[in-house]
Amino acid sequence: MTAIGIIGSEGRMGRAIAALIEESRAALAGGVDNGGDVGALATAADVLVDFSAPAALGDSLSAARETGTPILIGTTGLRDEHHALIDAAAADIAVLQAANTALGVNLLAHLVRDAAAKLGDDWDIEIVEMHHRHKVDAPSGTALLLGKAAAEGRGTTLGEVREEGRAGLDCARTVGAIGFASLRGGSVAGDHQVVFATEGERIELGHRAESREIFARGAIKAALWLVGKQPGRYSMGDVLGL
Amino acid sequence: MTAIGIIGSEGRMGRAIAALIEESRAALAGGVDNGGDVGALATAADVLVDFSAPAALGDSLSAARETGTPILIGTTGLRDEHHALIDAAAADIAVLQAANTALGVNLLAHLVRDAAAKLGDDWDIEIVEMHHRHKVDAPSGTALLLGKAAAEGRGTTLGEVREEGRAGLDCARTVGAIGFASLRGGSVAGDHQVVFATEGERIELGHRAESREIFARGAIKAALWLVGKQPGRYSMGDVLGL
Amino acid sequence: MTAIGIIGSEGRMGRAIAALIEESRAALAGGVDNGGDVGALATAADVLVDFSAPAALGDSLSAARETGTPILIGTTGLRDEHHALIDAAAADIAVLQAANTALGVNLLAHLVRDAAAKLGDDWDIEIVEMHHRHKVDAPSGTALLLGKAAAEGRGTTLGEVREEGRAGLDCARTVGAIGFASLRGGSVAGDHQVVFATEGERIELGHRAESREIFARGAIKAALWLVGKQPGRYSMGDVLGL
Amino acid sequence: MTAIGIIGSEGRMGRAIAALIEESRAALAGGVDNGGDVGALATAADVLVDFSAPAALGDSLSAARETGTPILIGTTGLRDEHHALIDAAAADIAVLQAANTALGVNLLAHLVRDAAAKLGDDWDIEIVEMHHRHKVDAPSGTALLLGKAAAEGRGTTLGEVREEGRAGLDCARTVGAIGFASLRGGSVAGDHQVVFATEGERIELGHRAESREIFARGAIKAALWLVGKQPGRYSMGDVLGL
Repeated sequence: MTAIGIIGSEGRMGRAIAALIEESRAALAGGVDNGGDVGALATAADVLVDFSAPAALGDSLSAARETGTPILIGTTGLRDEHHALIDAAAADIAVLQAANTALGVNLLAHLVRDAAAKLGDDWDIEIVEMHHRHKVDAPSGTALLLGKAAAEGRGTTLGEVREEGRAGLDCARTVGAIGFASLRGGSVAGDHQVVFATEGERIELGHRAESREIFARGAIKAALWLVGKQPGRYSMGDVLGL
Repeated sequence: MTAIGIIGSEGRMGRAIAALIEESRAALAGGVDNGGDVGALATAADVLVDFSAPAALGDSLSAARETGTPILIGTTGLRDEHHALIDAAAADIAVLQAANTALGVNLLAHLVRDAAAKLGDDWDIEIVEMHHRHKVDAPSGTALLLGKAAAEGRGTTLGEVREEGRAGLDCARTVGAIGFASLRGGSVAGDHQVVFATEGERIELGHRAESREIFARGAIKAALWLVGKQPGRYSMGDVLGL
Repeated sequence: MTAIGIIGSEGRMGRAIAALIEESRAALAGGVDNGGDVGALATAADVLVDFSAPAALGDSLSAARETGTPILIGTTGLRDEHHALIDAAAADIAVLQAANTALGVNLLAHLVRDAAAKLGDDWDIEIVEMHHRHKVDAPSGTALLLGKAAAEGRGTTLGEVREEGRAGLDCARTVGAIGFASLRGGSVAGDHQVVFATEGERIELGHRAESREIFARGAIKAALWLVGKQPGRYSMGDVLGL
Repeated sequence: MTAIGIIGSEGRMGRAIAALIEESRAALAGGVDNGGDVGALATAADVLVDFSAPAALGDSLSAARETGTPILIGTTGLRDEHHALIDAAAADIAVLQAANTALGVNLLAHLVRDAAAKLGDDWDIEIVEMHHRHKVDAPSGTALLLGKAAAEGRGTTLGEVREEGRAGLDCARTVGAIGFASLRGGSVAGDHQVVFATEGERIELGHRAESREIFARGAIKAALWLVGKQPGRYSMGDVLGL
């Protein structure tokens, strides 16, 4: 059985992954948190998953390179310097970096990119999401990931066309804009919908997460997929065969 | 057959009402626009509908009072002074004033008020609406009408709890808030949804307008209902028996 | 703190209630299953909840009457003979019987009944639900509960107007029918939507359960509400103040 | 300006197309119905659209071949013999045959095929649609078109996996099935949603038609696209560049 080592094992995602490994076709190689011995973990594991923090990324990648162990990076909040570290490591080992490890979300992003590319500019794009009452940022990272996919499909960048926080008497829609709207309430794990609307018809492409377990589930599936892959940088899209 | 007289007969709503009267159990008494003879129209009609402009309201009400003709006021953008005129006229004739004449929207507002009253503060309230790409104001007037109903149900006012234009890294939801989100695109006539969300469950109460005809349809139904009523001020809720 | 005694403590709902009591403002008085001493439990508890089986209902009610302990009956599959037992017990103690203990579902049923009563027969009623892939019956019990509420609002019975399993070349909708449609897939805990559709507009009243915990949550809330109530038969509607 | 000739000009679609040509970048070459002179129309037109009846197909194709005029066939209810006629004509002229000419529906079918191919068998597929109260067949032709696309993506045929009319106490979902559910009510022009559901998450891909105009709109767009194309058989997918 494939042994998975968890970096950031005491975090929310680390614990969710450990819990799910029990019911999957994998074994838990162990976990480290806050300065544990990553090198020893890398030796014991067939594949590493890192859901700790950007600051720990350098050590995680070094340990993985030394032992030739493939690694999945699920840490969010990465900056250019972190991506440079990942690119360097990818010369020696297989590295998969993902902002969101749910399979459905990544497939949806693929479909949204495709739809945006096929439909002309006379189809307006709007993205609406709902999350639990405690979330403080809006739009959600996943909504932005979907918006980025739509912008790519349109041959532009999200920065050029992003429109959000619509409120007031003079907020006419800009032609070509991608609009965002955010709902907050209850304990919603995460619902997203991308609406393409033109004269007389609408296409609605959406995703519903019932719980946060799906991110752990997708991370395990991706980690198992990563074992035995050639050195290089991979994405969730590769896992899905997109 | 009941004869309906249209004030503002050349406007979008005036024309829609005239077109629908043909297929309803009513007759068209005639129409006036921009300074036509409202008095003559009031004499010929069993009931008046006014979809002109706030500035014309005084003349419409005077003509209706003189002939004792009941009148439906569908004009939007009314201020306190206009409501005072309506209250005065309601001493002599039956006057129905409505911000939105669609039957479904008015029933939805009733249900939302009731749900908000029954559910505790641990149910967060969010309102999302979608309209066509050319609409310049957000939230829509109907979304605000629904929000007002929810606030009333909660025993507060919309001004106290209204929250809109959520965007940024620090937009935590206020406890007790009623949030608004607006989508714009294509030719959507008007979709509204009120979401009540608490730990583990959600109630979603929504309305979809397929076309703007429903506002004309509701206005005709309300006008027919108004014939023969005692002097007083009425609302769409009365037509629905709420 | 109020002490809750669980009859059927090893069943799915019994265990869910026990788990949630920890985080609520209640205490666990204990639990019995399959022939445990219900009398002793009734003595120790301020209120009983019974999620065991119809066959055990007689013993549960007897124990509750002897100690004067209020009791919530969440058992499903009750027949006339069971309802007679409940009616008899309600002469001496407070008994709440509920087919579904989720607060949101019960409020939704109330709103559906009201909407059906207010809207005329020219509004068609359709109910669609989705549940997990393992559910074998269709429509769901909750869909039928909602359909029953709609039929009551219309002044008829569900038996008179129920229409389901629409498929084929000749399945025209009967005027006045309440239609049911059932989706099955994945791990959906339970989504329900009641659609009222007429010429040009639709009202959609729905409920989403994120997990089965909400049934336990509602049962605890109802049990706490039941303490101190006069003898009589109660429903979830009473808990919600409907 | 491109001149479009309408065969079946007095039918619902024929009239809708004629009405929309006015506001598009095309001209009306004329129309024939019930035995009018198709040959003369073909001479006058740059492209023909046929929304008449299968029985008229032979004459339409003959006239188009004689004048070398491209033709769109929107007639439904075609059998093998009609497809053989189309194949023969496609040797000489450009022929586009489509069961549904709405652009959004055809793009949705493409996305559904792709999603079904990418997602494993542990994602259950369900299709739900709603149409107006007068529709007598269920599921809708468009729902079947979407189901066929899903089945193709899965490498099977719809006949193998189709499941509909779910109702009763023993209707467990078959692994690999594609389920259909149909709602009927009001004046709904046509809403479709394909749900992919697995453990913990759902992808929902849907289309909403606000009115039947979109079929005429898509037919005009396809007809304009067809002008100047090489002989051969085309589909709406080609118009969308799928």
